[in-house]
Parts: sequence; C-alpha cells; structure tokens
Amino acid sequence: MSGSAVPEDFLFDPERLRRYVNGEDGKFDKIAANLPSNLVLRPLQLSDHSRSYMGLLAEHTKAPAVSFERFQERFNLMKAYGNIYYIIVIEDTSQNKIVATGTLEIEHKFIHSLSLRGRLEEIVVHQEDKDYRYTDGNLASIILEVLTTLGKVLGCYKITLESEDHLLDFYGKLGYKAEKGQNYMAVRYFD
Amino acid sequence: MSGSAVPEDFLFDPERLRRYVNGEDGKFDKIAANLPSNLVLRPLQLSDHSRSYMGLLAEHTKAPAVSFERFQERFNLMKAYGNIYYIIVIEDTSQNKIVATGTLEIEHKFIHSLSLRGRLEEIVVHQEDKDYRYTDGNLASIILEVLTTLGKVLGCYKITLESEDHLLDFYGKLGYKAEKGQNYMAVRYFD
Repeated sequence: MSGSAVPEDFLFDPERLRRYVNGEDGKFDKIAANLPSNLVLRPLQLSDHSRSYMGLLAEHTKAPAVSFERFQERFNLMKAYGNIYYIIVIEDTSQNKIVATGTLEIEHKFIHSLSLRGRLEEIVVHQEDKDYRYTDGNLASIILEVLTTLGKVLGCYKITLESEDHLLDFYGKLGYKAEKGQNYMAVRYFD
Repeated sequence: MSGSAVPEDFLFDPERLRRYVNGEDGKFDKIAANLPSNLVLRPLQLSDHSRSYMGLLAEHTKAPAVSFERFQERFNLMKAYGNIYYIIVIEDTSQNKIVATGTLEIEHKFIHSLSLRGRLEEIVVHQEDKDYRYTDGNLASIILEVLTTLGKVLGCYKITLESEDHLLDFYGKLGYKAEKGQNYMAVRYFD
C-alpha cells in the first residue's frame, strides 16, 4: 500500500490520523493504550452503517435511519473531498457497535493568509458511556482532544463549536472559550 | 457551452446563481434590476484579485494581501470542490472594484436524513457603502437575501451564521434567530 492510499473502507487513512495526533508526545498512542481493549479509536468506516453509527447520531439529534446505499453515497462524497471531513469513532468491538463519534470539518478561507478553520460537529457518546461503563476516562473528552489536536496539526487558525449551556464548562476545560459579542443564529427550513 | 460547464473565470456558474435565486418570483432579476447600473451582482471571479477583493475582506477581519499565484491556488481548490463554496460579490464596474461580498458554505451531513447545512461567512460591505453612496438599498441585505435563498434552494435544513451583538437586529429581520442555550466557542492558534 502506498503512503497516500486510503484503505478501502475508511473515510480517511487511519495511519494519518495516528501520525498527526501523535505529534511530539505520542498523544494518539497514549490515548489508544489507555482505552479498554474492546474499544478502538479510528476514522469512520463505511461498514459502520451496520454498527449503529446512525443510531448513535440519533441519540444527539434528528438522524433517521437511512439505507446502506444512501449512506454509501454520502460517505463516498465526503471521502472524495479528501481534506474536509474528518469523522472519527470509537468502536466497542465486543458489541460490534459504535459508542462515540465526532466530526472535524475543515473550512478553506481567503482570510488569515489563506488559512483553514476547523469546526467540531456531531460530538456524540452513547448514553451508556455517560455512566462510565466502558472506561475510567471520558469518551467525549477523548474525541474532543483527538479532533482538536488534528485541527491544530492540519493548520487551522481557529477551531470552533456550538455548545449547549450545560456543556460550557466541559468545553472550557478543553480550551474552548465563548467569545465576547459573538452570537450563534439560525434560520430553519425543515427537520 | 454545455449546461454544466462553469465559465472559465468564475468560482461557480453565474447562470446557476441566477436560476436558483430567481425561483418562483424572479428574485435575482428584481435585485439586479434595482441596483445602480454600475453595480453587478455575480459569483467571485479569479480576476477579482485585481479588484480589491482581498482589500475588502481586510475591512472585516485579518486578511493580508496574497500573491495572485497563491490566490489562484486557493480559488481553484474551492472551485474543484464544486458544491461547497458559494462566494458572491458586488462589483462597481465604474471603479473596477469589489464593494460587497458574502460566502455560503455547504456542509454535508449524515444527520437530518443526509441533509445539508448552510453557513454564512465573510459578509462584508465596503466602508463607503455604509453611507449609501452606491444605492438606496443596503448591499449587506442584498448579499444576505441572495445567499439565504441560494442555501434554501440547494436544500439546506438550516442556515447559520455568527453575529456580533450590534447586528442581531439586522440579521433578525432577515429571518435569523438566536437559538436558546446555544453558544459559540472557539480555540485560537494564530492570526
């Protein structure tokens, strides 16, 4: 396999994820080593459609089940972009089930010297994990730390997210601060 | 020229912009007809590098000048994505200068039945236009109305933006509402 080839089933190359996040202090390997042996941290795979990936998203927001064919079409579109969508998951191999996920989306800019901006989206941890069933750590923190490091290494001048009120402290501990005078606004058309 | 070909210099096909925004009530044509004859509303062009496009962005945020070669590289990358970056401008042809701009970015989702989300970014109007030098209308409102309509027609389930406090009323009139319990947070690495 050449260095640039992405293994068939992955949204992006897992070796690239590991290398980027490892940086100087082997962060990725440390995190992986501290997970229980049945938990694997990796990029989204096409076959995660059968590991309740959509069901996990539905714990977070409106995410109706979709056929494998439609899932595959969207997956392949995201994959074809190559350097925009970084979706990671934690799989519980003992249950063949995705128990945590998060998305880093890269936005290409003209401002800030043609810089990149990162956005965190769809950070979801399976309900049962909120009771620390799987780990002494916190799967949400792991997802956040990996994606934030990835965005930094990719060259983002900033990474942003939208936080519900009750999560402000949680994100604050990971370096995310509310910025004075900035408001999130939306117009909605359908669910 | 085939229906799907994008004219050389444009980020995306101006005829597609017109057709999408016109929808049922000819909105694009009405807006264009109401602009002074020296103002043209259209997609970003590569040659806008020489029409102070970067200078206009610098009125809004940190946007240092970049060489044509670097601008072209980023422009071509955005164009290659095909259906993510919709940047529009208003050119003052009498001055060969861009006087207003806005970006609609399309985000592809698995949630909401594989839906799309729109984001408005870099809405900037040249300082002089804030005194209504060019038009009885408001160039910012025009940019907003065109991009919001475009996002809706493209199928976004919602369109969002980050608003400074003093612009809350302005965006509110265009249908954007602050959502209860949602906070914008950022971690910053460099300018």
